[in-house]
Amino acid sequence: MAIIYLDNAASTWPKPPTVKDMMAEAIEEYAANPGRGGHALAMKASKTVFRTRVQLSRLFGIQNPNNLFFYLNATQALNQAIKGFLKPGDHVISSSVEHNSVRRPIEFMRKTSQVEATFIEPRDDHHFYVEDFEKAIQPNTRLLVVSHASNLTGVILPVAELGKMAKERGITFLVDASQSAGVLPIHVEEMHIDMLAFPGHKGLYGPQGTGGLYVHGDIDLVPLIHGGTGSQSEAIEQPTTRPDRYESGTVNTVGLAGLQAGVSFVLDKGVENIRQHEWELVKQTIIRLQEIPGVKVYGPGIETERVGVIAFNVGEADASEVSFILDQQYGIATRSGYHCTPLGHQTAGTEQRGAVRASFGIFNSDKDVEALIHAVQEISSAFV
Amino acid sequence: MAIIYLDNAASTWPKPPTVKDMMAEAIEEYAANPGRGGHALAMKASKTVFRTRVQLSRLFGIQNPNNLFFYLNATQALNQAIKGFLKPGDHVISSSVEHNSVRRPIEFMRKTSQVEATFIEPRDDHHFYVEDFEKAIQPNTRLLVVSHASNLTGVILPVAELGKMAKERGITFLVDASQSAGVLPIHVEEMHIDMLAFPGHKGLYGPQGTGGLYVHGDIDLVPLIHGGTGSQSEAIEQPTTRPDRYESGTVNTVGLAGLQAGVSFVLDKGVENIRQHEWELVKQTIIRLQEIPGVKVYGPGIETERVGVIAFNVGEADASEVSFILDQQYGIATRSGYHCTPLGHQTAGTEQRGAVRASFGIFNSDKDVEALIHAVQEISSAFV
Repeated sequence: MAIIYLDNAASTWPKPPTVKDMMAEAIEEYAANPGRGGHALAMKASKTVFRTRVQLSRLFGIQNPNNLFFYLNATQALNQAIKGFLKPGDHVISSSVEHNSVRRPIEFMRKTSQVEATFIEPRDDHHFYVEDFEKAIQPNTRLLVVSHASNLTGVILPVAELGKMAKERGITFLVDASQSAGVLPIHVEEMHIDMLAFPGHKGLYGPQGTGGLYVHGDIDLVPLIHGGTGSQSEAIEQPTTRPDRYESGTVNTVGLAGLQAGVSFVLDKGVENIRQHEWELVKQTIIRLQEIPGVKVYGPGIETERVGVIAFNVGEADASEVSFILDQQYGIATRSGYHCTPLGHQTAGTEQRGAVRASFGIFNSDKDVEALIHAVQEISSAFV
Repeated sequence: MAIIYLDNAASTWPKPPTVKDMMAEAIEEYAANPGRGGHALAMKASKTVFRTRVQLSRLFGIQNPNNLFFYLNATQALNQAIKGFLKPGDHVISSSVEHNSVRRPIEFMRKTSQVEATFIEPRDDHHFYVEDFEKAIQPNTRLLVVSHASNLTGVILPVAELGKMAKERGITFLVDASQSAGVLPIHVEEMHIDMLAFPGHKGLYGPQGTGGLYVHGDIDLVPLIHGGTGSQSEAIEQPTTRPDRYESGTVNTVGLAGLQAGVSFVLDKGVENIRQHEWELVKQTIIRLQEIPGVKVYGPGIETERVGVIAFNVGEADASEVSFILDQQYGIATRSGYHCTPLGHQTAGTEQRGAVRASFGIFNSDKDVEALIHAVQEISSAFV
């Protein structure tokens, strides 16, 4: 049974074939430690890592590629940004649809470092208003952190407008692009994004083990990780040079070679085309799902654009059971449960039972929508 | 010109072909997000990651594979161990040959968290004595951290004896196995190692982007990274379950598939055989280098076993120039500079000029030693 993969919000699959090719070349020909030696293989590794930085800078409108740091995943990037920025007495504003990768670091700072936090709720049908964020500003507010798009309902937050407001109010603006990098247009300068965290293995079509953080040149963070950087080795303290200051230890050369291929693929396709493609599939799916008896789709209706994520439930059926049946009986990969966003579930009213999540990528087509609808129709007739 | 790769202490190269094969299979067939969904691809990813945990547990004598956590590199593992364990008022004992991945986190804790530290020097010809560490114990000493082997001189520290002493004195014992994992026998139970940090891309022959930390079940660390774990998603706090508590965000599925192949390769070859092979090459190289006029080899003589690392200088020549000539003229990849260990250089007396480092792996042979010796002879006749 061919797999119909609708779990792209967790990790995109399949990857473009060039990702495997670049990784194979890296592991066979030069899987050395970049930047830490002058020999030919290390130089080749350095070049690959730098080119990946350059490609990502093109994608995100970053002026200096050395302001972009590589991590294991977006979670590590977000921890570096949040814990490295906030100081005792600071107030941070965030939203009620944040992933645990934003919520938990903030709660940790709240508990251990005298940080205050406010989480803004959406109004009528999942819409976030800039004025609600602005009203929450206190004299000690130093950071605004939002997801560009919810990983549960696909709702898109008004990032450009929030960036403008944050800039006017002198507040640093961090965006979690876990569900938007490669799918929605992002330009850190035009959108006044001071810090941008992103995964490599979702909308950028790279492998797991890659993620990154852009940090504006004027912002100094306390490094989360201290160690060897290959530069200023003789100093006991972490160097100030970027990206070294924030990239201790050996980077994921092989994974970053794959990410380079993924980002090139995205640049070739064009973010706008990817966005259109996913939005068409989402619209179709929402319309068709809503026609099925007993099916409840969460989030705004199709008059509001969202990223390629749909959360739903079938009658009173357990979400994990529905997801299991989709996988076992129909070969359709979805995800059930809480999707690491308890806040998002409270907002959607699904905190008691979770939801089934179907999420799309560039390789999905109308046929996949058909298959999902057909399967949910059959499940619905059994359960409802 | 075929490359003679003598930079295995930075990253081993080449990798066994199975590493590329396992990674290619992972990226093509199931590069999904493990543990966070019930579908077939996610299950396959989970199994791969768990098998890698099991293989590593076999190698290191770890009883419960869930006490082993995966990170981007050994540096991140060491930061998690050191920063997650030490509390204000604690005293930590370490050695003077530590890499910056140990030294810098300790210095950071010293500066920001009222932690005290003592670094033990070796005596006569690079030998470390357990009694010197024991004498440094204070009432507030809670942690002993040592490298299993120096990344500069290859000197091996008496880890089993230090573990016994630390256990008797009630001090937690952390070992940095960056230069020893896969090369020297390690058994965390027999050696009383409470925490073990290791890279995946050195003696374990996996790819960059992998590393890990073993933490005894009785030790609770403050997580360095907070975020989504796929378990207890509904809780605002980090879950207590292992490995989830210490593995937030998506793990490097593809890289860990490669690491599994690397560890299997090491288990098949046998650590004792790898050790013998490297020690024979090192002995030969030291003897032959010392015969060359003006060449100074650092570290103990051949009566003292070391790992596959040799640091040397040629006359008054600049170390980076010698390394550059070796690469450009002879196709021999070595590394020059400070090797991220200013402490080690002070100990070796090379803090002003650095050193050239040649380091061996399982794929090196007598021929590589011949090539290095021949090249250094020629360089010596030009410089000395």
